[in-house]
Amino acid sequence: MSTPKMKLSCPMPKLDYDRISLAHGGGGTLTNNLLAKGVFDLLGNELLDKHHDGAIFDWSGKTAFTTDSFVISPLFFPGGDIGELAVNGTVNDLAMCGAIPKYLSLSFIIEEGLMMDDFWRILISIKSACEAANVKVITGDTKVVENGKGDKIFINTTGIGHVMDGAQIDIDRVSVGDAIIVSDVIASHGIAIMSVREGLEFDSDILSDTRPLHNACNSLIQTFGSSIKLLKDPTRGGLASVLNEIARDSANGILLEETKIPIDNQVKAACEILGLDPLYVANEGIFIAVVEADKAEEVVVHLKSLDPNSKATVIGSVTEKHPRQVVIKSGIGGKRIVNMLVGQQLPRIC
Amino acid sequence: MSTPKMKLSCPMPKLDYDRISLAHGGGGTLTNNLLAKGVFDLLGNELLDKHHDGAIFDWSGKTAFTTDSFVISPLFFPGGDIGELAVNGTVNDLAMCGAIPKYLSLSFIIEEGLMMDDFWRILISIKSACEAANVKVITGDTKVVENGKGDKIFINTTGIGHVMDGAQIDIDRVSVGDAIIVSDVIASHGIAIMSVREGLEFDSDILSDTRPLHNACNSLIQTFGSSIKLLKDPTRGGLASVLNEIARDSANGILLEETKIPIDNQVKAACEILGLDPLYVANEGIFIAVVEADKAEEVVVHLKSLDPNSKATVIGSVTEKHPRQVVIKSGIGGKRIVNMLVGQQLPRIC
Repeated sequence: MSTPKMKLSCPMPKLDYDRISLAHGGGGTLTNNLLAKGVFDLLGNELLDKHHDGAIFDWSGKTAFTTDSFVISPLFFPGGDIGELAVNGTVNDLAMCGAIPKYLSLSFIIEEGLMMDDFWRILISIKSACEAANVKVITGDTKVVENGKGDKIFINTTGIGHVMDGAQIDIDRVSVGDAIIVSDVIASHGIAIMSVREGLEFDSDILSDTRPLHNACNSLIQTFGSSIKLLKDPTRGGLASVLNEIARDSANGILLEETKIPIDNQVKAACEILGLDPLYVANEGIFIAVVEADKAEEVVVHLKSLDPNSKATVIGSVTEKHPRQVVIKSGIGGKRIVNMLVGQQLPRIC
Repeated sequence: MSTPKMKLSCPMPKLDYDRISLAHGGGGTLTNNLLAKGVFDLLGNELLDKHHDGAIFDWSGKTAFTTDSFVISPLFFPGGDIGELAVNGTVNDLAMCGAIPKYLSLSFIIEEGLMMDDFWRILISIKSACEAANVKVITGDTKVVENGKGDKIFINTTGIGHVMDGAQIDIDRVSVGDAIIVSDVIASHGIAIMSVREGLEFDSDILSDTRPLHNACNSLIQTFGSSIKLLKDPTRGGLASVLNEIARDSANGILLEETKIPIDNQVKAACEILGLDPLYVANEGIFIAVVEADKAEEVVVHLKSLDPNSKATVIGSVTEKHPRQVVIKSGIGGKRIVNMLVGQQLPRIC
């Protein structure tokens, strides 16, 4: 469950239109006004303020570079919105590289007719999330497509960060005996979205877990160095799909213990009602760490010291048995293979 | 007019589906198969092949970082397609920063139902354009939205490049007396798109000018160093809008000579038929250089030495008169103010 988040409150500037029009993407006066009053004022910094075709800065060292487009529906959901998600998603992908997130690009594809109020709420949310993650938006782009050719707003963020000294995140380092740790309860994001998605509505207090993970990941690397072999955030496809990718790409097996996998009781109940296996439900605010076995308990203690509410725990291990397969052991000792998600559970979960 | 381009010819891999489905964006087996067979095989390199959440590499020096989303319709147009455009567009924004383009991220937002053949054609085109521009795609993302919630495919590319030693591209360096050079004929891209756009069809041989501009721009900086004060590509909004941005941001006036502005006769005729001012028509393969006046003719000669077909020429100058305004002098000596594009000419031109 995510903790309550502080949001900035900035009055919307006086703009000439209530809704985004095609002309806001035309590259002329409306585009310039929207950027000047709507974006640059809010997100401005010394690099973005140059308004050039790109940002220019000095940089040196091992670098992580990652991109994600966000198409989530609805735009506003329990626990977050597309703006916050777009920042956190890319911040987290940098964190999974063992990097300290630094700069983001921000690109909008807006459907004609998007309410200016909604765009403003999303911008405010982006600003808040950037401040929380200590990243800056330094370059961007805005396109507008005709009504019916998009869906309100899609956001791409691309990020760069400094890979930490001592980070040795590499799938090739995963080896037999390593412990698999999950940083917190699973499946909250997907269930929060489903709880408000058309046709699937039910009352719940379940919130998306969207949040930046770089502090926890950076702290693990600072404390445990190369004992942290891999970090992955189990977003689309859930825990099962990401663990299958790790098994496949490392050519090892993974054995999970079902009773160890942390899940909120409400989320578990919702999964049962909806007939969903929580192992396949999307997450946005947790990560999997593959760590040297003899450091596993220390890593868990460390994660709990960073967040006393964390349900971090060892959920399994890497094994030489059943290479390239993920197997789960149930509470009563039975075993079954957990495949990668076949098809998809719910479109546009992120 | 762009020169004929060599395209790679790669047979499409055998995939399980003729069209992209929602499940291709689900993060499970179909996403993985599509990436493995469709994307990684074609675009693979030592960084992309890691399949991690981001790419990791060593980097040092002054850096340019830029992003663009491409929503052009139709996807395939005379002289190019969305894939090539998406690579060239970001390569060119890096070039306008005085940078040598190096790495790209690549993010797709695909509408359910996109023909796999079309996706493959676009991927081939991306690969060709990357090779032509000497850049590598090193990280990416694929999302799929429901039929009717997108329009076939949108592409975001974000790029990083090394700013060249000696480059001093900065709007604050633009000063009275500087020459304004355009690298080639204007308005070809916009007219090529209009020629095939629904409701505006007419026969023409006009091709989009989409092409990478980094070789020309990099060569100018290498040869003329700080005498090159600003580089801008006049895409959406055309020459008029970009020159207005330069006038506004430098607080200077710009005086153009109408008869000097190079335009292909066919393009000019098409503009007259369509009632369009070519100054506002989008370009994808030309740039404006603001240069020290006493180097202007040498710069033009240099551009023509790089491309014997180039119609590069001095089209105007920076003046202390009419600050923040662009004024054009006609062939018979009359003057008029050229404003930034108001509204937009044609949506989704890039």
